[in-house]
Formats: sequence, structure tokens, C-alpha cells
Amino acid sequence: MSTLVDDIENLALNPKVHHFATVQNTMTTRKNKKHWKRNIPKDPKLLKNNFIDNKHSTLAERGALFEAQRCLKCADAPCQKSCPTQLDVKSFIGSIANMNYYGAAKRIFSDNPLGLTCGMVCPVSDLCVGGCNLAASEEGPININGLQAFATEVFKKMKLPQIRDPTLPPLDQLPPSYQSKIALIGAGPASISAATFLARLGYQNVHIFEKNKHFGGLSSNEIPQQRLPYDVIDFEVRLMLDLGVQIFYERELGVNLSAQELFRDGYRCIFVGIGQPHAKTDIVFKDLTQEHNFYTSKDFLPVVMKSSKLGMCGCKSNDANKLPKLYGRVVVLGAGDTAMDCATSAIRCGAEKVTVVFRRGFQHMRAVPEEFDAVKEEQCDVMPNCSPKQVIVREGKIAALELYKTDVDSEGRTIVEEDNFIRLKCDFVISAFGSTVASEAVVNAVLPLQINKYGQVDVTPQQQAVDVPNMFAGGDLTGGWTTVEATNDGKTASWYMHKYIQESHGHAVAVSPELPPFCTPIDLVDVSVEMCGVKFLNPFGLASAPPATSPAMIARAFEAGWGFAVTKTYSMDKDAVINVSPRIVKGETSGSQRLGPHQGSFLNIELISEKSAAYWCLGIKQLKEKFPKHIVVASIMSSFNKEDWQTLAIKSQEAGADFLELNLSCPHGMGERGMGLACGQDPELVFNICKWVRAATTLPFFAKLTPNITSVVEIARAAKKGGADGVTATNTVSGLMGLRPKGDPWPGVGAQKKTTYGGISGNAIRPIALKAVSAVAQDIPGYPIMATGGIDSADSGLQFIHCGASVLQVSSAIQNQDFTLIQDYVDGLKALLYVNNHPEFKQWRGQSAPEVVQNSIVNGMGLPRFGPFEEKRRQLLQQEASDKILSQELQDNKIVKHPMFVPPTVNETVGKSVNQIVKWYELDPKREQHVVALVNDDKCINCGKCYMTCNDTGYQAIKFDAVTHIPKIVDEDCTGCTLCASVCPVLDCIEMVPRPSDLPYKPKRGIELGDFSQPIKINL
Amino acid sequence: MSTLVDDIENLALNPKVHHFATVQNTMTTRKNKKHWKRNIPKDPKLLKNNFIDNKHSTLAERGALFEAQRCLKCADAPCQKSCPTQLDVKSFIGSIANMNYYGAAKRIFSDNPLGLTCGMVCPVSDLCVGGCNLAASEEGPININGLQAFATEVFKKMKLPQIRDPTLPPLDQLPPSYQSKIALIGAGPASISAATFLARLGYQNVHIFEKNKHFGGLSSNEIPQQRLPYDVIDFEVRLMLDLGVQIFYERELGVNLSAQELFRDGYRCIFVGIGQPHAKTDIVFKDLTQEHNFYTSKDFLPVVMKSSKLGMCGCKSNDANKLPKLYGRVVVLGAGDTAMDCATSAIRCGAEKVTVVFRRGFQHMRAVPEEFDAVKEEQCDVMPNCSPKQVIVREGKIAALELYKTDVDSEGRTIVEEDNFIRLKCDFVISAFGSTVASEAVVNAVLPLQINKYGQVDVTPQQQAVDVPNMFAGGDLTGGWTTVEATNDGKTASWYMHKYIQESHGHAVAVSPELPPFCTPIDLVDVSVEMCGVKFLNPFGLASAPPATSPAMIARAFEAGWGFAVTKTYSMDKDAVINVSPRIVKGETSGSQRLGPHQGSFLNIELISEKSAAYWCLGIKQLKEKFPKHIVVASIMSSFNKEDWQTLAIKSQEAGADFLELNLSCPHGMGERGMGLACGQDPELVFNICKWVRAATTLPFFAKLTPNITSVVEIARAAKKGGADGVTATNTVSGLMGLRPKGDPWPGVGAQKKTTYGGISGNAIRPIALKAVSAVAQDIPGYPIMATGGIDSADSGLQFIHCGASVLQVSSAIQNQDFTLIQDYVDGLKALLYVNNHPEFKQWRGQSAPEVVQNSIVNGMGLPRFGPFEEKRRQLLQQEASDKILSQELQDNKIVKHPMFVPPTVNETVGKSVNQIVKWYELDPKREQHVVALVNDDKCINCGKCYMTCNDTGYQAIKFDAVTHIPKIVDEDCTGCTLCASVCPVLDCIEMVPRPSDLPYKPKRGIELGDFSQPIKINL
Repeated sequence: MSTLVDDIENLALNPKVHHFATVQNTMTTRKNKKHWKRNIPKDPKLLKNNFIDNKHSTLAERGALFEAQRCLKCADAPCQKSCPTQLDVKSFIGSIANMNYYGAAKRIFSDNPLGLTCGMVCPVSDLCVGGCNLAASEEGPININGLQAFATEVFKKMKLPQIRDPTLPPLDQLPPSYQSKIALIGAGPASISAATFLARLGYQNVHIFEKNKHFGGLSSNEIPQQRLPYDVIDFEVRLMLDLGVQIFYERELGVNLSAQELFRDGYRCIFVGIGQPHAKTDIVFKDLTQEHNFYTSKDFLPVVMKSSKLGMCGCKSNDANKLPKLYGRVVVLGAGDTAMDCATSAIRCGAEKVTVVFRRGFQHMRAVPEEFDAVKEEQCDVMPNCSPKQVIVREGKIAALELYKTDVDSEGRTIVEEDNFIRLKCDFVISAFGSTVASEAVVNAVLPLQINKYGQVDVTPQQQAVDVPNMFAGGDLTGGWTTVEATNDGKTASWYMHKYIQESHGHAVAVSPELPPFCTPIDLVDVSVEMCGVKFLNPFGLASAPPATSPAMIARAFEAGWGFAVTKTYSMDKDAVINVSPRIVKGETSGSQRLGPHQGSFLNIELISEKSAAYWCLGIKQLKEKFPKHIVVASIMSSFNKEDWQTLAIKSQEAGADFLELNLSCPHGMGERGMGLACGQDPELVFNICKWVRAATTLPFFAKLTPNITSVVEIARAAKKGGADGVTATNTVSGLMGLRPKGDPWPGVGAQKKTTYGGISGNAIRPIALKAVSAVAQDIPGYPIMATGGIDSADSGLQFIHCGASVLQVSSAIQNQDFTLIQDYVDGLKALLYVNNHPEFKQWRGQSAPEVVQNSIVNGMGLPRFGPFEEKRRQLLQQEASDKILSQELQDNKIVKHPMFVPPTVNETVGKSVNQIVKWYELDPKREQHVVALVNDDKCINCGKCYMTCNDTGYQAIKFDAVTHIPKIVDEDCTGCTLCASVCPVLDCIEMVPRPSDLPYKPKRGIELGDFSQPIKINL
Repeated sequence: MSTLVDDIENLALNPKVHHFATVQNTMTTRKNKKHWKRNIPKDPKLLKNNFIDNKHSTLAERGALFEAQRCLKCADAPCQKSCPTQLDVKSFIGSIANMNYYGAAKRIFSDNPLGLTCGMVCPVSDLCVGGCNLAASEEGPININGLQAFATEVFKKMKLPQIRDPTLPPLDQLPPSYQSKIALIGAGPASISAATFLARLGYQNVHIFEKNKHFGGLSSNEIPQQRLPYDVIDFEVRLMLDLGVQIFYERELGVNLSAQELFRDGYRCIFVGIGQPHAKTDIVFKDLTQEHNFYTSKDFLPVVMKSSKLGMCGCKSNDANKLPKLYGRVVVLGAGDTAMDCATSAIRCGAEKVTVVFRRGFQHMRAVPEEFDAVKEEQCDVMPNCSPKQVIVREGKIAALELYKTDVDSEGRTIVEEDNFIRLKCDFVISAFGSTVASEAVVNAVLPLQINKYGQVDVTPQQQAVDVPNMFAGGDLTGGWTTVEATNDGKTASWYMHKYIQESHGHAVAVSPELPPFCTPIDLVDVSVEMCGVKFLNPFGLASAPPATSPAMIARAFEAGWGFAVTKTYSMDKDAVINVSPRIVKGETSGSQRLGPHQGSFLNIELISEKSAAYWCLGIKQLKEKFPKHIVVASIMSSFNKEDWQTLAIKSQEAGADFLELNLSCPHGMGERGMGLACGQDPELVFNICKWVRAATTLPFFAKLTPNITSVVEIARAAKKGGADGVTATNTVSGLMGLRPKGDPWPGVGAQKKTTYGGISGNAIRPIALKAVSAVAQDIPGYPIMATGGIDSADSGLQFIHCGASVLQVSSAIQNQDFTLIQDYVDGLKALLYVNNHPEFKQWRGQSAPEVVQNSIVNGMGLPRFGPFEEKRRQLLQQEASDKILSQELQDNKIVKHPMFVPPTVNETVGKSVNQIVKWYELDPKREQHVVALVNDDKCINCGKCYMTCNDTGYQAIKFDAVTHIPKIVDEDCTGCTLCASVCPVLDCIEMVPRPSDLPYKPKRGIELGDFSQPIKINL
């Protein structure tokens, strides 16, 4: 019989310490590794009819959070400088890291109305990502486009309409100049962008004229569904239409549309954004048609798009039969992104082998590496340094293509070697040699705008046609290479169209452009809050800490949008301090040796302000003069001395402070002088100090509590009894951050590297601060609380509000970044209040969208994504694709019901959760509401962390399959401890669900109770 | 005059909140982005003579830590299963994450004596990395090879010798069979590996015969310096030589060496690891020689290596004149890694343009993607689907190469189209068509080993020649494709050679192979510790927590190597508990929403053990029977009841426990019954309980302290007064981990989602626990302390020892992983004790090597690595390369002085730092030891985080250059606060140095003191 210490059975796969080297012969490993292989190359044969997203940049929520948290949020960020639309990249990434996806999307769409499209199609290695400072570290640059697409897709799921900036005058108060008719020709990215900004400015007759029956321009007609689903274009156009822009379809230049006619119809100015609609061709292909199996990119891609982009032509399902029917060998000519799109589209249309041929070498490819990589991954071949000589046609179909060898001369020019050629067998040729405007009718129809022989329009930096004041152009037509440049051309033009129109009405516009940001009903949410009868613009302010080192800094914070500030603490002159250094160090509380960004904590041994009280009183006076709506809280400290406290209180009130905060809790240094903590740990002293201050001032005042105490509530009671209007909870937690390996502490002062216990701040102390706030809120219901301790996002701020705080003080998060954080916090709080309370968002968790179960037959089968299982998955997908086109479902982009919903105010939200915090024995008094873990096989990445933790830290209730590496919970053994879910690295992969009712929880006592029912009777 | 609230000047680059979209025309951005571009393509012209490391996988310390912290340490890790040497990848990565680089290197070299070489050259996408489970997340797989190279390079810098495993019998106690002469032919990876393991086993006559004057085989002769510096080969061979292996040079098979002669000379068995020394050729190249500018890879690469690998031929400097002088166009034939090495070497030898030509398409390339990428990055062209037809020679030099087009038939076979060819102008042709054994003399010299017509030897899975019991072979000769496979062949053979020899002497060997691990003098360090007269094998044990849920789990922990365990707390039967669930959740203390691995904290609302006391007493008894040298601490709890405490103490002693721990500090649930915290916060109760227990037991016992109290020291004093032998500091910190966005707490129990304050454990509470331990150590000198609270590495454990703890309890770290952590902790502690105390390691910080200042003229110039500055840097490098070969310096691999150094014991280290912790006013009483920040321009990645934090959280003491993005500290304004260094994301980029003596620190009061020198006289 086994004893209690025998090894536990069935843990064969749990790691063990090995004392010897492992011996396994090479051939066995060569075989085994195939089973575990995750990077199985793509088989082009399994891509037919498969238009499912294949972008490496695409991120789900876990990936997005991980990536966003890496971003350094550089001071003068090169990503932003390298983005044609000058997107505030770091701000939107910062919002993603804080799970404020609305805030991120708002930043993105503010500068780029095609933010989701651009997140999907931008050649970022040549743009934002090319400048990312993290490229200088081994981690590599941030996946900026993936993050951009992620945030805007979450917003897309919110189904909120775009509205005009509510801070601007409403339409009915605008002068008649805003009724001017504006025409935009071509419903592609440039016009969509221009129209959006014009509508945001308030123009009410913005009209787009489009030759097709659908919008989107090149986005619809040429960019493959797997890169840019039609759904996305539909969504972004819908946002534009929300603002009242109108599109007129089937209006074609030279057919039933011309600039001259538009002017005659009263249009005040015209933007031409028609792209370059015609393919450039090579004389070699003269007379070849689709009958011969010859396509240009302009013939080929639009047909592929019409068949594979669900919804584009009004159809609800795709018909694989309408795809061009390719087979055998396909040659694509060209080295730009269009050529790459032709190549990957050809595979999806049935090509067995695709070869991309181009005139110059790799170093001169126009396509950026990420575009070329897609082609390489799908096993296309390339033939650089070749140029078409002639096409060989047999029986009316292309049979081969002859290619000259090319070379580069010493000047870098391409030379065609006319005596040196090769023959490439092929069944199809697709030429992607670029595009132009080749129609005389179009050229005439845009006059007086001049289209030159390259199919381009010369414009000024304002995107204004040279010599034509009321015509503007952008996109491919003016030399834009990419969607994002077209978007920016439209944006740039919009401001100058506005300027032109207003000036022609005799109105001046601002010298520096003022294009309004993206707004939705969320921006209407009021986040102001009232505390002690005082109104705060928003609940976020600076704590009495380094960010409040000087009045000038507080002024900068107010300009950025912070609602209030607590000054750094000042004292009577006799208590003036001089600091030691070093004194503020990074925390070691987030796992060993984690370097920036986003320190989870700091420790400081900094004292109160070195500035004099006189300086602070003058500063407060000036702050209130300049920022009358912002709240200034004066933080004061003294030893247990009535006159000093009263002097500081009176002078601070005279200076104009709105509140006082009594610093009774500085955990280091000051206590040794009988201040700070030395007062704050004694209820009697706290009571007396509050009584004195109460007597000296009519201002509301708060006692700042220390967490370094057995009962924070007792001190709060004393403060209240003494007349304090509320408490601040809490100050920093006393601790010793760490020692360097040889034993020297850090911070270490002077040659002897001495240290003292310091104050821990930041995220790491948030659970302690949340406890303090909620404990006071529970003990003294309704007593005003200012919270501080690890507030670093709207989400964490709201947690403190739910625990009973009215306003929120921030410091460590600013230390990690800068004052601009406030924009994220305010937008994020608005979004949370809206989304948490709007009935249509019931399934959302914060700003995280509920998961949509995918339709594909292979999802939900729990097939691991490695080796034979991954191969099986791909085959199943291909089987499905043989019947229908596989692609992203068309989403409903209609807006939610009741978008103008008004959520509860911050004040109505304060303390919402307090009653859910109970004593342990009240949690589940009958001990009948147990949970068990449930693993989602399809999300599982097979790491087995759940299995390990359950074995070595729990109950051995998980089986781990040796072949599939899929864990299974044994309900009977699972005690619901939740460790598995806590260590799982995949978001929401392990869920805790109610224990099956037929399996009530019974504790396993090992040996039944009985032996220890009575104490031993002893006489000691 | 400006007021105190006017905006601060010169912060132009500090981020501001913008209220409008930014307007900038497309062409301006197109120009600007070039300035900030970091991913500037390589210019092959700037690579001539440049043999500096160019591997993307190479990691410096910051990158290594970041990457190692990502690793999930999977249960049944596929990386290990996919490594030919079956390296315990996750364990070595775990050690890197804990900064235990020695531990990592020990793991690596234990299974792979060429661990550094393999880290540099393995085609990992086909091996370990190909199976990494993180490939299923968007972050992508771990850079395993980079981490492997990093850890082993740090060890290389330690300059420690290899020694035999000290736990094995010493050489002079081994039987004569270990004197058997063993011959290994060829000093390449296979033989180096085999020889190392044979020497570790104890063989004293292991002789390698090498035909060249240098060792290394293919590593030396064919793998380019930029991938594998010669230095590395030298280092790994030195480690082998440390064990007494001998190499005999210039002994060539068929010339002056044969198997027959070796047997005649008394060799007991022979390992043949000669690789495949001869190039396969194509008939097309018959009669072509280097005179014509034709090379095979076997002619070309060794010449390049001899000239570019410093030290390989005994030379101290390289001579670029000895490199093959290439120019113009070079064609390389082949699609394997050797072809890729030929291509990149050709560029370095002067080729202007390299084209790689191969017979099949991309999908059939032999080179793995990472090898092909190097070629693509260096702008080589490729011509797939081509096969050589003939070489055109003009005036005795190659002028062009004619290539047939190839095709693939329906069966996948390559077809050469004999009527279809192209001409490629070129000046050089290098063929890399693989290798073989083509010499009759060699074939004869290895008889009776049979080399077949493919140049291969057939072997059994034991690497034993078929039908020849005493001959073994491995590496290329037996079909190994890679260095790591060759290494594994040598390793596999070594065990079976040992088996053959021992069995031929009549000794049996173990059935399961027992190849000894890698050891150095660090493994001789004694980490045992004595406390209360009891010896602990090492200071690490299980805390009274989930890892100690059952005796069987404790047994597993002891087997893994833990020194002691504290049981989960048990009580009298009447106090038996039933838990609620969920109850253990992940922390939110490491920045918002950080997912696993490595949770920085957990929060639990778990009570004491559900098992009965009877079960625990039986378990303790059985544990002590099975593990007499391991220490079992019984954790007990009761309400304030003398008889209960005494009963538990007496019964636990009877069961055989070595120590008792009184749980006086459980922060939730138990307190409501008058237990745990309810006792532990009152010195009087603690005193009495200790007194009762003292009376009942002769065992040493400890009181477990709570940190949730104003003064932990008071409780410790009470415990001591009551007779406790020591204290455990500390239990978990009480807190509320967090709420979900709608306000529900987590953990939330039952339908109403109720919660209670729980206990925070893990890294986040370490500063609190360090304070508690050091405060007790300071207050009661010499009083034994068991530490707990965030111990998750040798480094953090040693911090607690330096603060006064003797032994260390672990729980959260095991929750994050499993019991095997102990191996890392023990190895890490040995390494820290050795390195921290050995005089030759004075410059090291823990296990981090001091930085070596590089020689290159461009380092230290502070040129940012973007845009024009990066281009300048590359030009300067190329100027330098025109004079000499640029490559890694040859390091001195000689061992450090006094390697057998014996460091202080753990006991001698306890409390080392306690005296450095002082009161604030003692830190720098005269306030004259201030520091200022110093930025290392060359390390700076130009993010400006220092600038932002100094502006918005400090003193505006940093200037940030708008063009170079290099920050400069203004010493005068810098107060030494250290925030800049704390937020800098680059390791050691900002250093705090003493403030210049001519610039003593003076506080800036803003307005001089004076106005608040006297309190207002008031009568309130």
C-alpha cells in the first residue's frame, strides 16, 4: 500500500530535475521534432479560394496588450514623424496598453479617417515602424499597424456613430459659407478623408462623385480581401456618412461628369481623387487579351475583388465561380505591391505555381519587405533581372514567356541584354507595371486641372492644383504612393479647401490649421465630479509628489487637462529640508529585473518640497488666477504644533487654495522630526491636528492616511472626529526595495551606500490602497475620499471610484510617462462609464469586446496548431474552401440602438462595489457555490502551465495529453482554487465555471477528523 | 517678468496634448522620415572586410532578460524535444530570466559541450524554435539560440575551468578500465563532444587526431567569422582540454594515420568524426581552377576563414591581403547553408554583386529562412530553377555562366530544359553542391569501417559502425546535417563507447545512460546553512502555502532538491475549514493587465489546510523516514487556547517534525475565528502563545509574523520573550487585488460576486518583507529569521540573507512554475557566493559581466543609429575596414587565477547589509554626497524617457537635441533624484555619478526662507 509520501501518479509530463545529460540519437529527434513543429511552411495548394486574413501584423487582445506595453512612448516620437498623417502613435498605443481602446481609436481616427484601412495595408517598414526607436534594441520595433488595426476594430464592434466635435458651434449656428457645395471626384481614400474633415468642420454640402456602383476606390478594387476586408471599407465610409456627406454613384468623368459642369452647378471647389485608373502596358503584350490568358493588374484584381469581397456588389454570399479561373503556371510581372497582390491572388484563383519576374535586382524592389515576404511565404518564385521579350501563344493560349536578361550598368541604369534570353513556360501572364491616366476624355473632363503625360497632376504643398485656386487633388494622381499618403492628401486639401472657401466669403481662418478630431457619443459623457461642494472638471489630479514639484509644472498639467493638483508638501521655514540623492528608484516588484517602460512601482526617500512656503503660496495664487476652474489643493505639514499647522492653513487659504491636504503620512525622514508618519500613526495626534486646522480655516481639508499601520480606519475616524472633510488614502508603503548582489542597497547614499526604508508607490501598492479606500468607505459611508496609490489608467481609477473615492491622485504613472496621460484617462473614463452602463454593451467587459464564435468548421475542434494537427486543420479548411470562398464574415456596420445614451455620473458611481466586500465567512456561508476550471481547447497554446501549477501547487486535477498537449480538468479533483487560470498566459483561455451540481464540493481530509477532536490533557 | 506658472522654456520636444488633427503635407513627411529611419538597408559595398558579428539572434543583457522573461517554461517543452542534444531549454532560459547566467551555462554545457557554437550556428527554425509554443501567439517564438549564446558567452567571460562532477569518484579511485586509450579522428564538433563526455566519465587517455594544425573542423574551416568567431571554438576546446583530453595535430588519414595502426597501438576503440572533406563537383566545371576564378566551397571558405579568423593560424592580427580577391559579379551555385556562407563571404572579399543560383524553387531551398534572410539582407540576388550548362571563359578568366532553365514535373522531379538557357555575366563562380569523401586513401585508412559511395558510414542508433563493435562514427559522415547533430552523435557515441569499454572489462553500466553534467569550481561551493543547530542542505524551502498542500508534494519537492518544507497549516479538528472558490488570483501589480508568464504577485483568500491534523502528523512521520536529511517544519494554528496550541505542538513533535512554525498571521478568514492575524497583531497574545508552546515542546519553533501591522518588531520581541527560537517574516500583505470594470471584484465568490480582503504574495510584497526581515535583524541581532515574501531567484534569496534571514521560504514562484526551480536557485546561490567574493570578479555585478569598451573608432562617438548618423557610422566602419579586417577581437580564454577559491558560507553572509540601513538623517548627515546623472550616448536609443520624466516629474535638467535625440544632463539643475535612470529602458545607460565638486548642491527655495519663520499669533 502506498504511503502519503509516495510519488503522485500520472504526472509523467511534469518537469523533474535531471542529474544526467540526456542521451537520444539524432535520427529519433529528427523524426520527433516534426510532431511538434509549429512553423510548417504554407502549401499553396491549400490556399485556393482562401481569402481569410493572413497578415502577420493582426493582433488579438493578448498580443495587442503585450505589444502595446513594450512601447516606450518616446518624447519626440519618430513613428509619428514618419507617418504621412502624423498620427499620434504613442498616444494611441498608450491607450491600448491601458485597455482604453476607444481612446486609441479616437486618436487614430482624429488624424486619419481611414485608420483601420491604413492599419491593415500601410507599408509600415517604410513609415512609422521604420523609425521606431525600439529597432535599436533586440526586441525590435513595435507592430504599430497591428495595434492600429486592433484598436479601430474594437471600436468598429462598438457600432457607434461619428458625431461632430461637441465643443464646436452646432451646424445651425455656422455662417452660410458652410453651406457651400463641395465636390470630391472618386470615392477612394483621398476623397473619403477630405470629405470627413470638411464635414467635421461643419460643411453641409459635401458631395462625392464615384464612377462605380460601390465606394472605396483602390481599397475596394485592388487590395485583396485577405489584406483588407470589404467590411472595413464599408465601416469607414459609414463613419463619413454619419456626418452627412453624400455619395453619388455611376458618375464618371468624361461620360456624365466634368469639372466644368460641377462649377456650373454651383460647386465652390472641387477635389479630384480619381487615382490612376488605367494600367501601364508594355508593347510586348499588344493584342493579348484575357482570351489568351493575359491580364493587366487592372483587369485582374478588380474581378478577383468583386468575387471575393462579400458585400461589395451588394451580394450577401460569394461565388467562387466568378473568380478568374487560373491554373498551371502564372507569371506576374512587376516588383511593386500590386504585383505582390496579383501573385497571392493568382494562387487563390487556382494557380499551381506563381513566378514573379522583375527587371531589376532585390535591392531595387519597390515592394517593402513585408509585402514581398507574403509572396515568399506562399512559395512563389522570383526571377529578378529579367524583362519580357515576347509571349509565345499556342492554340490561342499563352504557352510561354520569353525574358531578356537585364543587367545594371555602372551608373545604375538597367540594360537589357538583347542577345540573352530565357523561356519560362506558363499558362497565364499578369502584368503589374503601374498605372496612369490614359483617357483623353478624363483628362479633358477635369480641366482646368492639368493632368500631365505621366498621368499626374502637379500640386502645391496644399494639394492645390498649380494655377487653379479652386481645384485640389490628391492620392495617386498627385504622386501619393500609398493609401495613407492619399488619405493625408485629402486631409491636407480639406484644410486648404476650407481656407479657400472661408476666405472667399471674407472670413479669416486660423493660421495654424485646426482640423477637428474624431468624436462619438462617448465624448458627450460628463466626467466632472463634485466633492465637498466643489466641482472638479474630471476626477484626475496630481498627487503631492514629484509631478507637483513647482507651480509651473502644475500649470503644464492643467493645460494638458488634469482636473486638480495637490502641491508638493510645504512646511514652516524651520522645517525646511534638503534632500539626499539618489532618492527615487525603480521598483523590483514586477518580476526580477524587468526594465522599462512602465515600472510597476517606484521607491523614494524624497522628503517634502525644498521650496519655501512663501514660494508655494505665491504659486497657488498665480495658479488660481490663471486656471480658475482647476482645483488646487495645498499640501501642508508640520510637527505636532498647533500654531504651525494653523499658520500654514491660514496662509494657504489666503493664497487661494481650494482644499488643504494634511500630510500625516510621509513614511521616511520627516517622521524622525516628529512629522508625517510620526503623527499619522496615532489617532489622538491626528484628531488634534485636524481640530486645530478646522479651527483655522473654512476650506475643506483632508488628512492623508498612511497604509503603514494596523488599522487605517481608526485614523480616518479620528480625522473625521477632528473635523476633516475627508481623507486621502493612501500615502506610500514603507519598504526596502532591494539590494545589489554584493549586498549594497539601492538607493545607496554616499560612499558607504547607506539606505533607509523608503516609500513604495505605483501599481504594486494598488491592492493596499484599494483596501484602504474601501475600508474607509465601508466604515464611514459617504465620507469623501481622495484616492492615491497605483492609479495608472481610467480602469484603475474607476476601481477606486467603485471602492468609494471621489477623486483620484496620480504620480507614479506620470513618472513613467508625462502629463499627456490625462487625455487617455479622461477618454477612457468616458468610454467605461458609457460602455459599462449602456444595455447594448451587456456582453462587454470594460472596453473588451465579447468574442464572436467563428463559423469555420475547424474552429472549436480543439486541434492544436502544430505538426499533424495543424496539417489536418489546413486540410479541413481547404475542404471547406472547395465549396465556398473562405473569408472574414461581413459584419453589420449599422450603429447601436440609442447611441445618445447618458450614463450615470461619476458621483453616482462612487462606492458602487463597497457592499460586495464582506467578511470571509459571509462570502459563501453554506460553502455551496464552488467553481471548477474549464479550458478552451481552441485557444490553448499547449504550454501546460495549468498542469504544472496544479501538480506542484495544487491538487493534481489536470490531465495533460502526451500527444496533443491539451489539458483536461478532472472536475472531481478540481477544488476551484483558480491558480490554473491565474498563470495561464492566454487571455480568457481558462474560465472558472460553477461546479457541476451533481458533484458538490467535499473537502478531502486525508484522514477523517477525529484524532484531534480533544486537546491532550497536560500539565505543563 | 514671468510668473511662477508661466510655461517652462525649452521643453519644445516634451509631449503636449493636441486638440486638433495635425496637418502636414505628404512630401514633407516623405523627406523627414528619412532622417529618422532605423531600418536602413545594408549596402554590400560597405561590407568589404567586415567580419563583425551580424547575427540577428545576438543578445545583449537587456535583450536577453526581456526575451527570457517571455518564455513560458512549458511543461513538456517542444523546444527540448526538437533539439538534437535534447537541451533543457526552458531551464536554462529560466535561469537567464533570474540573472543566473552560470546556472544557464551549466544546463547548456551539460547536454551540449558546444553550446555556444550551437547557439550561434544552429538552424533553429528547424529545431528548437520550430516547436516553440509561443509561435501560437502573436509575440512569436523565443530567440532560443540567442539566449543560449548569451548565457554561454557570459560564462566564457568568467574564465572558469571545467572540472569533473565532484559527486563522482575521483580519477584515482576509478578502475583501470578508465585508463583505456580512446582515439577520436578529426577535431571537429563530433569528436569534441565525444571526448568531453568520455573525460567527464573519467577516461584519462582520450586522444584526438587532427589533420590540420588547428582544431574545430568545419566550425573553423567553413563557418564565417561573422557567424562563429574563432575565439568561441578556442574556448570550447579549452573546456575539453581542462579535463585532460589531448589533441595530436597533423595526423591525416591515409597519410600518417589509420584505424589499423591505432588498434595496433593499443587503442580500445575509435570514433571517426572526419566530416566529409571533399567537394561534390559538376562535370560542367571540369578543368576549371582558381586561376579561372572558379572555386568550390571547399577551396573558397577555408581560405576566407584562415584570413579572417583571428588566432586560428596562430596569428595575432588578420591580413586582408590574404583574403581571396574577388571583384565584379560572383555567382554562387547551391541552396544550402554553405552556399549562403559562400555568398556572404564573397561580398566581404570584394564582390560587387552576388547571385545565388539553384536548381529548384524557393519551396525546396535547403537553407532555413534565417540563413537565406542574411543573403537577402546583403542584397544578393537569387535565380531559382536554373542549372549550370557551361562556363564561358575569356582570356583565361570566367566571363559568364550559361544556365538551363529547370522545371518540376508532376511527380516533383526536377527537369532540365535542355533547349532553354540564359547567360549570366560573371567574373567568379563558386559551387557549393555539398560534400563527400572522395579519397580512396581515406576510405582505406578507416577500414574496417565502411564508407559507402555517398561518402557516408552506416551506423546503428548508438553511432556504432554496423558490424564493427569497437568503431563509432558521427557528424557529416553518418548523415548529421548540422553542428548540433554532430555534437549529439559524439555525445551518443560517448555513452556507448563507455559501455563497450566497461563491458569489455567485465563491468556493467547503468541501463539508462548516466552522462555526467558540466561542472566548474562553482559547483564546489557549499550552500548548506545551520539554524538553531539544525543543518539545512540549502536555504531554500517550501513556505506553508499551496506548494505544501500534501506530504506527497513535499516529497516531490525534496526529490527535486528543496532543503526544507513548512507544511500547510493544520489545526485541531474543531477548527477544520472548507475553502471557498475562486480563491487564488493573479496579481495586477506589474502594470495594467500583464498576462503570464511570471505573475509579479498573487492574491489568495485560501484558508489553512483542509486536511486533518492526523493526516499531517502521519505525513510528517513518513516524510522524515524517507528524507532524513531534509527538514520538515510543522505549521500549526489555533485560537488563543493554551491546550490546543500545546496539543498541536506535542503531536507534531511526536510525528518527527524538526521545527514548528506558529501561524499567527493568516490575513483573512481565520482572524474572524480569533486565529491567525487576530492573534498575531497583539504582542501580548503572541507572547502567551509562544510561552505555552515553549512549555510543550523541545523543538525549535518560529512565530510567523504579519506585515499588516504598525510595528513588526514589537511582535518579534514578544515572540522572543515568549521563548520562540526565531520568527518567520512575513506572511502575506492584506489587500484588495482589483475590480472588473463594471465593479465586480475578483476573486468574486458566488452569484453575487462577493469578495473579502485577501493576502498578497509574491514579488510585489518583497520590499515589505525585506523591510520586516531587516528590521527584526537590526532590532534583535542574531535572532534566527526564516524569510518569505517574493523570493523567486537566488539573487532575491540572497537579498534576504544579506538582510538577516538564514533560510528562505518560497511559494509564489512555484505557483508560477514548478518544483524544478530549486536547481536554478541552488546553482545561482553558489555562483553568487563565488563571484561576489572572488577577487578576480571585482568588476562584476552579481553574475553580470563588466562591460568591455569596444575598440572600433565609431563606438563612443555617440552617433545615433538612425538616418544620416547611421549612414555616417557605416561609412566610418568601412573606412576602418579598408585598413584591416573588422571582426570580434580575439579574447583571452585562459582561466582565472585561483579558480579553487572557497567563498564565505551562507551563515557567514547572514545579515551582511543590516548596518547599511540607517535612519534618514544618518544617510548623508552633511548633505554633501549628492549625485548627478550621466548618460551614455552610445547606448542611448534616443527615446527621451529621461527627458520627459525630468520635465514633468522633476527639475527640467535635461536638454534633448531635436536633431540627434541625444539627451544631455545639465549638472547645475540636476538634483540627483535618479528618476531618469529609473525609467530608462536601456540597461546601465544612465549612471548616477558624484556631483562635480565645484558645483556643490544647494536647494532652490524659489523664494528665500523668511516669510514663514514665525507662526501667526492667533487665538482660535
